[in-house]
Amino acid sequence: MASSPPPAGRLRKAPENFVDASGVRQVFAEAKSGRRDFIRQAFAGAMAAGAASAAVAAPADGDPAILTLPEHSRGLGKPVATDGYGRPSRFEANVQRRPSPGLTQTAQSSVSFAPLQSLFGIVTPSGLHFERHHQGWWDVDPAQHRLMLTGSDAKMLKRPMVFTMDELMRLPSVSRFHFIECGANSGMEWGNVAVPTCQYTHGMLSCSEFTGVPLKLLLDMAGADTKRGRYLLAEGADGSSMTRTIPMELVESGEVFVAYGQNGEMLRPENGYPLRLVVPGVQGVSWVKYLRRLEVGDQPYATKDEAIHYVDLLPDGQHRQYSSTQECKSVITTPSGGQVLLDQGFYSISGLAWSGRGKVQKVDVSVDGGRSWKPARLQGPVMSKCLTRFSLDWVWDGKPTLIQSRAADDTGYVQPSTKQLRAVRGTRSIYHNNAVQTWLVQANGEVSNVQLS
Amino acid sequence: MASSPPPAGRLRKAPENFVDASGVRQVFAEAKSGRRDFIRQAFAGAMAAGAASAAVAAPADGDPAILTLPEHSRGLGKPVATDGYGRPSRFEANVQRRPSPGLTQTAQSSVSFAPLQSLFGIVTPSGLHFERHHQGWWDVDPAQHRLMLTGSDAKMLKRPMVFTMDELMRLPSVSRFHFIECGANSGMEWGNVAVPTCQYTHGMLSCSEFTGVPLKLLLDMAGADTKRGRYLLAEGADGSSMTRTIPMELVESGEVFVAYGQNGEMLRPENGYPLRLVVPGVQGVSWVKYLRRLEVGDQPYATKDEAIHYVDLLPDGQHRQYSSTQECKSVITTPSGGQVLLDQGFYSISGLAWSGRGKVQKVDVSVDGGRSWKPARLQGPVMSKCLTRFSLDWVWDGKPTLIQSRAADDTGYVQPSTKQLRAVRGTRSIYHNNAVQTWLVQANGEVSNVQLS
Repeated sequence: MASSPPPAGRLRKAPENFVDASGVRQVFAEAKSGRRDFIRQAFAGAMAAGAASAAVAAPADGDPAILTLPEHSRGLGKPVATDGYGRPSRFEANVQRRPSPGLTQTAQSSVSFAPLQSLFGIVTPSGLHFERHHQGWWDVDPAQHRLMLTGSDAKMLKRPMVFTMDELMRLPSVSRFHFIECGANSGMEWGNVAVPTCQYTHGMLSCSEFTGVPLKLLLDMAGADTKRGRYLLAEGADGSSMTRTIPMELVESGEVFVAYGQNGEMLRPENGYPLRLVVPGVQGVSWVKYLRRLEVGDQPYATKDEAIHYVDLLPDGQHRQYSSTQECKSVITTPSGGQVLLDQGFYSISGLAWSGRGKVQKVDVSVDGGRSWKPARLQGPVMSKCLTRFSLDWVWDGKPTLIQSRAADDTGYVQPSTKQLRAVRGTRSIYHNNAVQTWLVQANGEVSNVQLS
Repeated sequence: MASSPPPAGRLRKAPENFVDASGVRQVFAEAKSGRRDFIRQAFAGAMAAGAASAAVAAPADGDPAILTLPEHSRGLGKPVATDGYGRPSRFEANVQRRPSPGLTQTAQSSVSFAPLQSLFGIVTPSGLHFERHHQGWWDVDPAQHRLMLTGSDAKMLKRPMVFTMDELMRLPSVSRFHFIECGANSGMEWGNVAVPTCQYTHGMLSCSEFTGVPLKLLLDMAGADTKRGRYLLAEGADGSSMTRTIPMELVESGEVFVAYGQNGEMLRPENGYPLRLVVPGVQGVSWVKYLRRLEVGDQPYATKDEAIHYVDLLPDGQHRQYSSTQECKSVITTPSGGQVLLDQGFYSISGLAWSGRGKVQKVDVSVDGGRSWKPARLQGPVMSKCLTRFSLDWVWDGKPTLIQSRAADDTGYVQPSTKQLRAVRGTRSIYHNNAVQTWLVQANGEVSNVQLS
């Protein structure tokens, strides 16, 4: 499963049977005017081309073949609760999260990528949520799990506390939709490595409805001194001893919470079951999984995962530290690398935009390599520090085309081009690449990843 | 799996190990004032009671038992992509959708209920989405599936069309969060049958982010005469020949769409893969699964599933037909029937509210059997024809208590009491029961379903 090839995406080749394409073509040819007709006409061209290549023949009236109903229209199907916890269709078996063999030395300290090219809307199904483990994942017994609140000294937190999961789940909770992105997402693109699909370029990105207890409430209960204690250390229970510094101002904003729920159910084991920290807008490594301890302190902790890893190597050789916020970014997921356009004509360009600073304000799309831009439609509700789905109607004329998206957030920040980003950050970073992604649609319909620099 | 007992819910008994409850109790006892302290004090009482019954002893300093880390803090865990499509924790195996044996004569024409008592937020995980089949479910090959648009006569629709899934998925799409509720949800409660858990009282309810093509666009493309054609017939491809009439005004509102996506991925087979109709606010039976045909007509079709089934038997013996909109409704999911409160003290009462007419405006909660009501907090974003999560802080004093929720929507409609609803509708209906649900918390903490009439 883990070594099977990446999926070809949703723009499958048309099946060579049944559809009365000549009739439909005729229908489309009667198009009139306006946007609906723009779609109709553009679509008609595509379908005509498809029909020609597939050599579809309309069945004659009374052809016995079309009078035979498929089995599912005649027979008795499967009973309810065939599966008390259902699974996707067998026809969707290629929609999987996938590792990138060779990216890391071990599969326990590694990544699997979410298949963004196959997803719709903004919710990531929990079964396809990207993974990033530092010492493998565990299915931790929630009855044994504890969350401890402490201070770096006795005055920093008056009442050290230990919570069971049952105790946490009795407290007031919030449910919020947020994206989570690994700081290393799109990391390969810093150099001239153009990995083939958006699953690998941008797939360390997922979005869920998380549920949990506001951390502010827990710190209030424990009597944290947030005047002196301007930082928190978050520590995970797995063997990687993951520890990250969280600025107290993020907690005071009310946005940070300790989460047990994800997309309506308990967190998945790979995502930190039974408890993880949710730090909206901040890179995934700070969303500490298997969360077991929070310590209030008066300075950043400079732990191994913020001193050696998750730092940005700048052109002058210095490392930038604590650059934790995921800046505004977007990617076109359809069409995207590895997909094949069936034929020329109408397509709905669709993609995702997000910002760790707030709401997505605008997404522009270019179909000429960045020379001109058109505003995309944003699908509501547009939520803060959450994915936003955008789309744009497009007619492909069959010629090679460079397509790009560029997002801006409500702080006024605009996603940079690769060239702009490299001018400031160089090419030797791993982390925090939020440059505009470019896909090349070739004349044969194949889509590939190219870098414009 | 299908016959295992219903889950006990999330309010598990406290484990009898580790927690330094005496220390935590002391910590809580130092509470001061304000809402945080209300929670702290209330919670402290509960934990003290829990500690007493569990006879917890704080480990002595240096006790070797607490120096031994659990295996997951020492060892190497499982690799990434252990599962290309992940599953819930083994500790969540009791969270399942469940049938109600005996409710129907066959398991192919039956129901499985979503475990609302175990869910958070508003998204229903697709693996736990309720099921309602009329002749079993199928995993239909999307490459073979077609959607046909026709008219009841040649003038009703100028250009009959047949779409493949690939063609539909190339068109402009929308993604929207909506609830879906079976018209028969809470049907057993019309009489004096009080089924034990909210999984069975209200579990024919789910909520997803659906993605698909606005039906208005398809009808425009096909040249439907929506002046004469004020109705649509929606037909499914499974053996039940499900057919339902959809008023054209719902389509014209722009809200109705043909959906292929659910919570980010393709629909699940049990929920109509690869295509179903989404009719926000309307009972689930009209969200025709395995959607294969839409016909434009000039009058309601009075099909078997709207003439014999899904009609309301009124006190005077008449049947009410086409009462398809799901009126405003709510239910407390925590605490709810079948759960056991650990002990007295603080709880966060939590539940779901929804309306087929628009947005939930307000939810009131009563903890005295309806004599007095307090406004609950609504978790945003509050979306139209979508579930809304509500919550209220509550301190249980250990005495028998009746708890209820009552929702109102933005049309001004207020959810009726059982008494009010029965006064108009009698007691012999199956469908469209949106009465206030009452749970009894007994002195021993057990919660059960009771009817106040």
